[in-house]
Amino acid sequence: MPIKFKSHSSSAKQKILSLVSVILFGLTNQTIASQESLVPEVNKKTERNLKFDWPMIKIGTASYENGPTGTTVIHFGDKSSVAIDVRGGGPGTVNAPYMEMGYPFPELDTIVIAGGSWYGLEATTAVASALKDDGLRDGDAFATVPNIAMSVGSIIFDFGGRRLNEIYPDKKLGQAAFRAAKTGNFPLGATGAARFAKSGGFFGCNSFSGQGAAFKQIGKVKLAAFTVVNAYGSIVDRNGNVPSCYTESGLETNIPVADLFSDYGKGLEKKIAALKNKHKQNTTISILVTNQKLKPAYLKRLAVQVNTSMARSLQPYGTLFDGDVFYAVSTEEIEDGELNSVELGIVASELMWDAVLSSIPEQPAVTKTASKKQKKKIKLSKQQLAKLEGEYKFSEQSQLILKSRNGNLYARSKGRINVYAIPNDKEIELLQVTKNEFTVPSRYPFLMRFEKNGELVINPGHWQQVSINKIAN
Amino acid sequence: MPIKFKSHSSSAKQKILSLVSVILFGLTNQTIASQESLVPEVNKKTERNLKFDWPMIKIGTASYENGPTGTTVIHFGDKSSVAIDVRGGGPGTVNAPYMEMGYPFPELDTIVIAGGSWYGLEATTAVASALKDDGLRDGDAFATVPNIAMSVGSIIFDFGGRRLNEIYPDKKLGQAAFRAAKTGNFPLGATGAARFAKSGGFFGCNSFSGQGAAFKQIGKVKLAAFTVVNAYGSIVDRNGNVPSCYTESGLETNIPVADLFSDYGKGLEKKIAALKNKHKQNTTISILVTNQKLKPAYLKRLAVQVNTSMARSLQPYGTLFDGDVFYAVSTEEIEDGELNSVELGIVASELMWDAVLSSIPEQPAVTKTASKKQKKKIKLSKQQLAKLEGEYKFSEQSQLILKSRNGNLYARSKGRINVYAIPNDKEIELLQVTKNEFTVPSRYPFLMRFEKNGELVINPGHWQQVSINKIAN
Amino acid sequence: MPIKFKSHSSSAKQKILSLVSVILFGLTNQTIASQESLVPEVNKKTERNLKFDWPMIKIGTASYENGPTGTTVIHFGDKSSVAIDVRGGGPGTVNAPYMEMGYPFPELDTIVIAGGSWYGLEATTAVASALKDDGLRDGDAFATVPNIAMSVGSIIFDFGGRRLNEIYPDKKLGQAAFRAAKTGNFPLGATGAARFAKSGGFFGCNSFSGQGAAFKQIGKVKLAAFTVVNAYGSIVDRNGNVPSCYTESGLETNIPVADLFSDYGKGLEKKIAALKNKHKQNTTISILVTNQKLKPAYLKRLAVQVNTSMARSLQPYGTLFDGDVFYAVSTEEIEDGELNSVELGIVASELMWDAVLSSIPEQPAVTKTASKKQKKKIKLSKQQLAKLEGEYKFSEQSQLILKSRNGNLYARSKGRINVYAIPNDKEIELLQVTKNEFTVPSRYPFLMRFEKNGELVINPGHWQQVSINKIAN
Amino acid sequence: MPIKFKSHSSSAKQKILSLVSVILFGLTNQTIASQESLVPEVNKKTERNLKFDWPMIKIGTASYENGPTGTTVIHFGDKSSVAIDVRGGGPGTVNAPYMEMGYPFPELDTIVIAGGSWYGLEATTAVASALKDDGLRDGDAFATVPNIAMSVGSIIFDFGGRRLNEIYPDKKLGQAAFRAAKTGNFPLGATGAARFAKSGGFFGCNSFSGQGAAFKQIGKVKLAAFTVVNAYGSIVDRNGNVPSCYTESGLETNIPVADLFSDYGKGLEKKIAALKNKHKQNTTISILVTNQKLKPAYLKRLAVQVNTSMARSLQPYGTLFDGDVFYAVSTEEIEDGELNSVELGIVASELMWDAVLSSIPEQPAVTKTASKKQKKKIKLSKQQLAKLEGEYKFSEQSQLILKSRNGNLYARSKGRINVYAIPNDKEIELLQVTKNEFTVPSRYPFLMRFEKNGELVINPGHWQQVSINKIAN
Repeated sequence: MPIKFKSHSSSAKQKILSLVSVILFGLTNQTIASQESLVPEVNKKTERNLKFDWPMIKIGTASYENGPTGTTVIHFGDKSSVAIDVRGGGPGTVNAPYMEMGYPFPELDTIVIAGGSWYGLEATTAVASALKDDGLRDGDAFATVPNIAMSVGSIIFDFGGRRLNEIYPDKKLGQAAFRAAKTGNFPLGATGAARFAKSGGFFGCNSFSGQGAAFKQIGKVKLAAFTVVNAYGSIVDRNGNVPSCYTESGLETNIPVADLFSDYGKGLEKKIAALKNKHKQNTTISILVTNQKLKPAYLKRLAVQVNTSMARSLQPYGTLFDGDVFYAVSTEEIEDGELNSVELGIVASELMWDAVLSSIPEQPAVTKTASKKQKKKIKLSKQQLAKLEGEYKFSEQSQLILKSRNGNLYARSKGRINVYAIPNDKEIELLQVTKNEFTVPSRYPFLMRFEKNGELVINPGHWQQVSINKIAN
Repeated sequence: MPIKFKSHSSSAKQKILSLVSVILFGLTNQTIASQESLVPEVNKKTERNLKFDWPMIKIGTASYENGPTGTTVIHFGDKSSVAIDVRGGGPGTVNAPYMEMGYPFPELDTIVIAGGSWYGLEATTAVASALKDDGLRDGDAFATVPNIAMSVGSIIFDFGGRRLNEIYPDKKLGQAAFRAAKTGNFPLGATGAARFAKSGGFFGCNSFSGQGAAFKQIGKVKLAAFTVVNAYGSIVDRNGNVPSCYTESGLETNIPVADLFSDYGKGLEKKIAALKNKHKQNTTISILVTNQKLKPAYLKRLAVQVNTSMARSLQPYGTLFDGDVFYAVSTEEIEDGELNSVELGIVASELMWDAVLSSIPEQPAVTKTASKKQKKKIKLSKQQLAKLEGEYKFSEQSQLILKSRNGNLYARSKGRINVYAIPNDKEIELLQVTKNEFTVPSRYPFLMRFEKNGELVINPGHWQQVSINKIAN
Repeated sequence: MPIKFKSHSSSAKQKILSLVSVILFGLTNQTIASQESLVPEVNKKTERNLKFDWPMIKIGTASYENGPTGTTVIHFGDKSSVAIDVRGGGPGTVNAPYMEMGYPFPELDTIVIAGGSWYGLEATTAVASALKDDGLRDGDAFATVPNIAMSVGSIIFDFGGRRLNEIYPDKKLGQAAFRAAKTGNFPLGATGAARFAKSGGFFGCNSFSGQGAAFKQIGKVKLAAFTVVNAYGSIVDRNGNVPSCYTESGLETNIPVADLFSDYGKGLEKKIAALKNKHKQNTTISILVTNQKLKPAYLKRLAVQVNTSMARSLQPYGTLFDGDVFYAVSTEEIEDGELNSVELGIVASELMWDAVLSSIPEQPAVTKTASKKQKKKIKLSKQQLAKLEGEYKFSEQSQLILKSRNGNLYARSKGRINVYAIPNDKEIELLQVTKNEFTVPSRYPFLMRFEKNGELVINPGHWQQVSINKIAN
Repeated sequence: MPIKFKSHSSSAKQKILSLVSVILFGLTNQTIASQESLVPEVNKKTERNLKFDWPMIKIGTASYENGPTGTTVIHFGDKSSVAIDVRGGGPGTVNAPYMEMGYPFPELDTIVIAGGSWYGLEATTAVASALKDDGLRDGDAFATVPNIAMSVGSIIFDFGGRRLNEIYPDKKLGQAAFRAAKTGNFPLGATGAARFAKSGGFFGCNSFSGQGAAFKQIGKVKLAAFTVVNAYGSIVDRNGNVPSCYTESGLETNIPVADLFSDYGKGLEKKIAALKNKHKQNTTISILVTNQKLKPAYLKRLAVQVNTSMARSLQPYGTLFDGDVFYAVSTEEIEDGELNSVELGIVASELMWDAVLSSIPEQPAVTKTASKKQKKKIKLSKQQLAKLEGEYKFSEQSQLILKSRNGNLYARSKGRINVYAIPNDKEIELLQVTKNEFTVPSRYPFLMRFEKNGELVINPGHWQQVSINKIAN
């Protein structure tokens, strides 16, 4: 006898299928990181959140912590109007031409932002399906307001060596975030779509980045700014300072951006040569929502003005290596606001700057090797070192080969994705940090910890990478 | 011990999961039409096919016959260049702004066309994932040519009362079509993305439509034209005739389009009033491929010229109710062709006309009621009629309630989607055709057949709709 | 004491300045063709005119008959709304991005179409000035509706060897046409902006072309279609025939366009080689006006739909060698029409086809040489021939050198613009037609007439070219 | 006998015609401000200039000092490539769609920037004509590189109450600037197109503004940034300060822009009410030139990136009330530069900031009334005051009526343009400054000086407005 499900039970079905999947395919290291067996973590708790009162806006996040990578879904409580403004050189979008048509009626249901480069667009189309599967929308194009789900969205590039795998936000993850969406809270920092965002690659800062938000009410007019910052440029505050940047001197805070530009200018030829081999892919996705109804031309102008203003909080902005996309949304809850679109634009531009600043997560410290004194205490025996040897696999794309020799431990990368500073064409010596931790001196945080269960964890903490199995040499 | 799969085995996995799905959830009528339990039929055999020799182009189709609806995937053997030209008022697209950037290097992998309105875009993003899952593409943006999968695509609207359900091409279907793609053959007619396409709604023709293709070689230059015709306008041949149209006189062939326009003009006010309550959603998606390398500006011009030329073979074309999108693709196999982009455009425009004409499937005849003489022979008893009574469910959106009275059978629609000419606000008498077949006299084919297994089949044949269960009144 | 002028008297001033110009610079052949001394001919009488009743639309034309080239100004009686749709590969436009903004208020004053390629845009900007100089508009951007003149416009390419000079529509001409604008009449044929238009260059037809118009009223809804046809493609009627074409067999009428395409396909390589050295520049500019108010998105859709439909009446259309621009205008005189934008678009598309067909002027016959019998009668003596010798100047860009030898007359072109079929690298024999007329056998009309006043007139008639002086050899 | 001119002598002709114009129409006050009798002043000397060595770039400026208003022409020594990026809400452009086509060959000759709102576009089209009239370009579209002049350009809004007339840059002025163009120098400040530019209207700063420029060479790569700043926003330096602003406390320098935004936020409703009646029209036009060849897509990206970056130096930027247009130009002098388009973009963005900062002219002080002590010395007698009475005409749009009463002088505006702070609905008392100078206390500079020749000069100095006649009351 078939198990009966209620109409909205597809997530229940999913759970059973996941279980079956586990039973059939196993939970061995070989498959744990394949998309099919990944388990979404929804609305992960974050230290910082923006609380705001706007029932028409529901926010949901979901992540695959094995990536880590994730998605953020903004679900509008009623059909809303939207305008798009694309400025980056490598955008990922769904239904952009339709948004440019300027029809004078609201159609938008959701905006979905995700990691995973173009693969992450699957999350956007999946939310359209979920809107339909859950009975909120259908295929009726002839209703007074068309009842077909309109889910648009964009993605950020969070591969590129920053993660040791290429897990991406897929249909399952997008739908999980959508179904978890609720009002009143926007989680800040390295979560949701910004789970593994970075910023400042242009200056070599490589700061960890996140998603930000800000809210303001002026009379009856509500404004919310949301942004997922994964910029090639650096975040700049209102004093002209970059809040955090990994420089050759370590993790620095509040560096004047003018100094960074000036330093960049010095020895330009050399730096350019370096850049040539280290191109970056980035993207900042931003959304400005107001409850004030605006005619299509003015909603578009709002998008243009506020998007342009972001060149202040992100420097440089809108480069070839960014895929920056901006959405201006009106929930059309109030007919006549007191602000025209320019004034809205100015208030919203400052609000968006606040949102950008709110996105920054706490940065991990650069790893330090043990002092001479410590070294003696923690020195491992030949046998202990031999036990660490082997090929550690992080994904099909990335493995690490460890060998010990003369009381030292050596590493070499294997696969398409290098394990950060460890090259794939020669062995490099690992320096000890603690009894079970090693590092390679680097401008950026880099810590390798050998766990008792045999896992090798790189950069334990919020952005950790865990080996999925180990083969003896 | 876990079952081991090779790296490309996700379709094998899928089959097992489908099986499990069947075991767990059953194949009862309640669930047969839910997306999860639908089974893709790939590369369904068609009577007519375009055979052509071009190893760089692989074509795959897949359909859910329960819809029926489907998808067509065109997979280019190597990264190709693409330009897009959107003309319709309701387009569905993925990554259109990126295609407008005009970068001078090839990135395109696949173009995916699907039914299902915007929901069908899931097939497009799913093919990107499949390219990655199957190891053809990955997340490497820094390879000489970026190795990220670029899957673009568009959809047609095939809901809207033409089907009694809202099944759409989803991730599973898109990936199935992609994995079935092979060279040398393009299936013609009502298959793939055009599984339930129609054309000529504007004139009330409502012809069944399909996908078409044509191929030509001039010297070394190859040209292929593919199109999925779901136009609000009618197909017009080079003599100015509409090949097939359901008119008030039945199924007519080769009507001069000028007459249709002229008829349309007569009594315009009345016709407009009729149209006002019967808006249409349509869309024609077309692809022109050449092996000749063209600079981005010229590839774009090619798209513009050939797309514009389609206003000859589809009249009207590019209306508000269409979502017409055109792709021009260069596989860049030959460097210097003998044709400039205008000449290519002219040859291609004629080729596209051929493709449109090749798309037309055989039209079913308009149903005729039994003659007086026949009627006597086939008349059903009161008991026989009573057996047919009940609520036949086609989908959550569409049911049919049958009642017998005074030796006649009466029908009324229920749910959001009317069962064609059967209204939902009053009962209508069904007229007998054969012993087990009934009809409602209509401009369009409409036949109801009661099968021995209890199913009610509407329009048996290529576009049949089958009831999924029946509840006694 | 200064002469007093009333505020609108700038044309009076202009006349005096022209007179002074003549007095100071002379009317000698050296200067007659310079822009400064050219005299506009306004609202030149034409054989065919479209009479229509629409007080809100004023039409003015002006030409420099020395070109000949001209301009057509459409002046809307009140600020109107406008949408633009550019399809050609070589457009000339003023303020197109502004028209794309989609603001929901009317601003358009005039649309100006002119010959002279990009130089002719001077006519468009000049009409803006005239609107201000004449006190109709000023610099007030803060009036309820901005009172700054909005004059937009486009140009056609009418140089390129079809004329022996490069006279272009300038400020003086544009303002003259604007000031001559009146309601009720649109002159048809080779006049105004279409003074030296041609069509069908793609097939080698090289038909003389013109401007066309059509008008229709449905209930309260008015529609007018205006077009200046200078297409690379040929005009095609509703039977699929090209009304007129100079073929190798002479001037042919009603050739099936399918035959032309088919002929084009035969020996394609050879024809392409020929084309390679004979690129064309063309352009069709079209305007669709309705009195029905439409929201910006729908006015834009109307432009897209009707412009696309022109691919039927002009084949090919929108090529790289065209600069096709389409304007949809609403005078916003009635609030609620009975037609939605698609229906308007369909009616307007047929109307525009009518307008295209109405544009065709009577074609001059291909010149025939005298019969043997005639030849004897008209034979010129050595002395008579010697008198014809010399260098005839048509413009700075084009001269013709005539020499007599052995009782024959020989010609050679000089300057950048060849005198039609007469080459500049060798002498070619002229064949006699009448006592004072000669020709070079050609696919196209070519007649040289020696006037008693010493002028050499090429192609006497509507498209005549007159020498401006002669220097003895 | 006609006077003979050499081929380039049209400016000589123009002078004679001007003379004749003077003879015929007189130099009386009635006509001095009409466009026809205005005399261009070319390459007016400026205190500050950017000297730079780049033979391929010629700069010419011209102004009508009666406006004052002017134009700046940038003439490239050889056909150059151009990309456009429009961000403002009220742009004025010529041939923008053509620039968006992305053809891979250079065609640009000149970029023309002018005052006069849309009327000033006449200067752009006039420079195309001049290129032809002067024999540099012609009508040959079939040369290897088309030899048709490509003159593009944009305008700024310099009416709107800042001037007491609506004189605009016309054909004569545009051609004068073009013909005066020379290499090596870009005049800075309130000259050329920026002759009456202003900035900071949004904050009420109303600073006088100008045109700026900066130049940089890195290896072989040259970069020049030119900008005409007439922004609704304020100029901001790299310390986040606004260099100059007329506030309620007078002329202030180096105000933190964050304070201005914050002040703007305070009492927002009230300020918005004020703004509602005082909308602004502005525009910043900027040009970035490099000698490095870039493929069309990258030249476009350069335009996007640098234009976006201007949101730092102009805050707010790209609003509805701006018509911001940005041009990126490559002279294609060097094939392979060391910088890719992002790097070029970053260097160019800083350079453009330098250019913006260099544009600021010296600001006139706010006028102060005489002290009590001074007042006694300068007091005018009743008779002296009576002599000042009368209607002073500045233009057809602006007059001032002065009356004396009880030893005081009273003023009232007449005409569409108010004389700055003097209303047109009531008389206002003028306060004495010196013997022959008066003021109305105002946030902005306002000085009225009675000259001995009977002229009334408002704001004597660089932005002076002079009465053209006076009628006794």
